[in-house]
Amino acid sequence: MSLLAVGSVAFDDLETPFGRRENILGGSASYFSLSASHFRPVEIVAVVGQDFGPDHYKVFEGRPIDLGGLVQIPGKSFHWKGEYGQDLSEAKTLETHLNVFADFRPVLPETSRSAPFLFLGNIDPVLQLEVVKQMAQRPRWIALDTMNFWIEGSREALLAVLKEIDILLVNETEARSLSGERNLIKAYQKIQTLGPRILVVKRGEHGVSLFTPEGYFMAPAFPLEEVLDPTGAGDTFAGGFLGYLASVDSLDFQNLKKATLAGTVMASFTVENFGTTQLEAVTLERIHERLRLFTDMIQVAGN
Amino acid sequence: MSLLAVGSVAFDDLETPFGRRENILGGSASYFSLSASHFRPVEIVAVVGQDFGPDHYKVFEGRPIDLGGLVQIPGKSFHWKGEYGQDLSEAKTLETHLNVFADFRPVLPETSRSAPFLFLGNIDPVLQLEVVKQMAQRPRWIALDTMNFWIEGSREALLAVLKEIDILLVNETEARSLSGERNLIKAYQKIQTLGPRILVVKRGEHGVSLFTPEGYFMAPAFPLEEVLDPTGAGDTFAGGFLGYLASVDSLDFQNLKKATLAGTVMASFTVENFGTTQLEAVTLERIHERLRLFTDMIQVAGN
Repeated sequence: MSLLAVGSVAFDDLETPFGRRENILGGSASYFSLSASHFRPVEIVAVVGQDFGPDHYKVFEGRPIDLGGLVQIPGKSFHWKGEYGQDLSEAKTLETHLNVFADFRPVLPETSRSAPFLFLGNIDPVLQLEVVKQMAQRPRWIALDTMNFWIEGSREALLAVLKEIDILLVNETEARSLSGERNLIKAYQKIQTLGPRILVVKRGEHGVSLFTPEGYFMAPAFPLEEVLDPTGAGDTFAGGFLGYLASVDSLDFQNLKKATLAGTVMASFTVENFGTTQLEAVTLERIHERLRLFTDMIQVAGN
Repeated sequence: MSLLAVGSVAFDDLETPFGRRENILGGSASYFSLSASHFRPVEIVAVVGQDFGPDHYKVFEGRPIDLGGLVQIPGKSFHWKGEYGQDLSEAKTLETHLNVFADFRPVLPETSRSAPFLFLGNIDPVLQLEVVKQMAQRPRWIALDTMNFWIEGSREALLAVLKEIDILLVNETEARSLSGERNLIKAYQKIQTLGPRILVVKRGEHGVSLFTPEGYFMAPAFPLEEVLDPTGAGDTFAGGFLGYLASVDSLDFQNLKKATLAGTVMASFTVENFGTTQLEAVTLERIHERLRLFTDMIQVAGN
């Protein structure tokens, strides 16, 4: 009864105003699984090269993260190099080396094909649809992340996979670009007609907006004194959000709200340090502590 | 037991991607008082010229807004001309004619000098301090709005009046510029040492962050399908926020949170149409209806 996640496991070179790191663990599936596994066991489907060594595998060890679908093949792992300006709001990509990821065709292990919950990380929508088709039966829900590269360049393929999707997670620009609507309420109304009945708009330091047929919900970002590196915040959010939803096995509005808080709090740990450093170190106790603190910050009693 | 507000009453020429209006009622005290008067009687101290006619006075009639301190003198009223681009996030000032406002020296009517609550709208900090000195006794609280023009150009005068202040309302840029800190938590810690113990950071379409010694609170903006003109949103927020606080005569954290919601909801009406159109038309019933809706959108039960 795991949460199955398809995405990338990669190495990143990062530079922010607060420092730089080279060859650190990155990729959507890494952040996603480290985050989600605090709420629900996760299975990763991804590909790495021969440069992915014992130390890298060790990051996932001792956690409920099944690496049965993490294929290692000859070549180098996906490598991304990016930098952030003073306001940290947007990464500038300096280099992208797809390496083994260029020919990635996700093949689900037999045991994963009946996973009840499926997260399709930000990869080619053609591959996302192939994954959906490999499932033995339709999962209880399927969530999908994508980006402007696919929205603009592979629109038909994206529209095809969107028909199969329950939950779409994108940022504001992507929601607007996909829907052709600047206003997010109108964007949601349009996106609903494409398939997803639930839209999550990630707004970085401004929080998250959740659109569901039962109502809208908005949560700010957790306020932090220090943000060192925003890399992986979106995937960490998705992990906390979907991990929570899988743990309660419900998509009702109340649980979607709580999942939004869980995702937000998980992302707040990630950005406090470079790469997965903080996400690796955080304990369930600290997660719950921050979740209580955050809930107090956005709740108004007695209304 | 009114809320005394010092600010501007003006005429605006506005252009947004959705239309243009000329010579419509504007100014911080106009938006503030129309908003606050739904919660608490307001007294305005401001100046207008001879072009301020019966139709303009009529906007304030039939409301608990005391115009005893609205002085009319020879000359023209303050006139501002501005336009907004597609994203509506920032006004570009095209023309500013101070007119009678250039020599404005606020003189409080005798009856206003014992007002228990004082809002110092965004005017020269020298004048803001003069107003404070005219009070017969210290009000229960004093709130202040300012802008980068004064933060950068009249820092000493601003620091002098800030010492007298309980609540500072500014936007993100202003909070950073005043404190020298990019991070808002650090900005608050710095601003506390300058006088105000409560900081409200207005973040436009991203909502409001509230910093108090008892804790932080964040509220998103109320999501709207149509935003036609953001002019006056900040002053309308201040009116709802401070009007609510005056109505409950309390600055405790719980009431500050509720006041944030009241201000946010009031501002949401203002931006739905040009100028004060929507703010003039809104009823207490619609305010409470939207307040309930908004509360549902940001509340998570059962935590």
